Amino acid sequence: MDKTQLENIIREVIAQQLGTKCRVQPNDAEDKKIPVGISNRHVHLSAHDLEILFGRDARLTKFKDLSQPGQFACQEKVTLVGPKGVIENVRILGPTRKNTQVEISVSDCFKLGIKAPIRDSGDLAESAGLTLVGPAGSVTIKEGGIIAARHIHMHPKDAERFGVKDGDRVDVECYGPRGVVFCEVLVRVNENYKLEMHVDMDEANAASLKNGDFVKIIR
Amino acid sequence: MDKTQLENIIREVIAQQLGTKCRVQPNDAEDKKIPVGISNRHVHLSAHDLEILFGRDARLTKFKDLSQPGQFACQEKVTLVGPKGVIENVRILGPTRKNTQVEISVSDCFKLGIKAPIRDSGDLAESAGLTLVGPAGSVTIKEGGIIAARHIHMHPKDAERFGVKDGDRVDVECYGPRGVVFCEVLVRVNENYKLEMHVDMDEANAASLKNGDFVKIIR
Repeated sequence: MDKTQLENIIREVIAQQLGTKCRVQPNDAEDKKIPVGISNRHVHLSAHDLEILFGRDARLTKFKDLSQPGQFACQEKVTLVGPKGVIENVRILGPTRKNTQVEISVSDCFKLGIKAPIRDSGDLAESAGLTLVGPAGSVTIKEGGIIAARHIHMHPKDAERFGVKDGDRVDVECYGPRGVVFCEVLVRVNENYKLEMHVDMDEANAASLKNGDFVKIIR
Repeated sequence: MDKTQLENIIREVIAQQLGTKCRVQPNDAEDKKIPVGISNRHVHLSAHDLEILFGRDARLTKFKDLSQPGQFACQEKVTLVGPKGVIENVRILGPTRKNTQVEISVSDCFKLGIKAPIRDSGDLAESAGLTLVGPAGSVTIKEGGIIAARHIHMHPKDAERFGVKDGDRVDVECYGPRGVVFCEVLVRVNENYKLEMHVDMDEANAASLKNGDFVKIIR
């Protein structure tokens, strides 16, 4: 057991003796704060599916940059169709990826009538199938529909500061009137990442989080 | 500090030394489990507003009993109207109450274009105003629209077993693939209550909870 572990244990014991529960802690040091980014439903397209949905030689048109470097929201939107319902105007995020990936919420799954699993981005094996419809055509994917697992993007320098590494799981406390601890949140470390915790709309609403609010790794 | 507190602290310290974070614990003793009830948006009506919306001498018709004794879902439904949108087919819960209370989610607030505060049931001062429309008329309430704060209903015997009392705040851990700790959850103790934690759809989706799933008070 190293010094940091021991410190954490002592801190926890003191907190319990004082009866402190998970609470708003607005006085946390700046370097402990992690900004929140809320992901609404969206689609990443493969180059192949982009052409089917938007026409031969179609290219994604940037609508605005996203916080993660190189990622952008597109002008292009599609309609998602499942056995029980339709969701229109779902935004494409660029650039294109190897595989088409549709990220939706639990509520969206009810509306579409599909059962998407909670998955990390890119982990699409045996995820939900559904149909995407664009102005030039439609694609029915056998898999690619997921509920994105919450995660924290970090630059290696952030990871060093927080004492974590790529693939670690951490518990994250949220400030605000609906205080919540998200358990076992995946840490993703990459030179190209900017520090940010990504949650979906359900998670943001449950914790009363808004874009740019701050959360904190507690263990 | 009593023996139970000391035991809890020791348990926490050991958990930390072993690197245990908040996790699924399917082997918890039966008497620690609290079943979950998920509240979709709904309306409690005053006798006065019931008559305006459904006609003179209107009475609520039971659709089905709810888990809390004496409470029932009604056949009757209303339309909610805000400055930005409409939500149809919102169910009335009976019996009537002193004041009309509309319980909606964060997402519903966006849709209606109103800002409802997170409140305990009955705490309606300066909460959100909106319009309710029924088959016989409409009512515009100045206050009564809230996002219901999560809470645990308990019989006094449960409260004794858990070592809590009416009005206490506890941290509650949820099982499942989206493990979450809900912080500072209100405990409500009454002879007429049946043990159940109430959360709204956003909270249920964020924690992957279904009706009848179990949660646990952790401190």
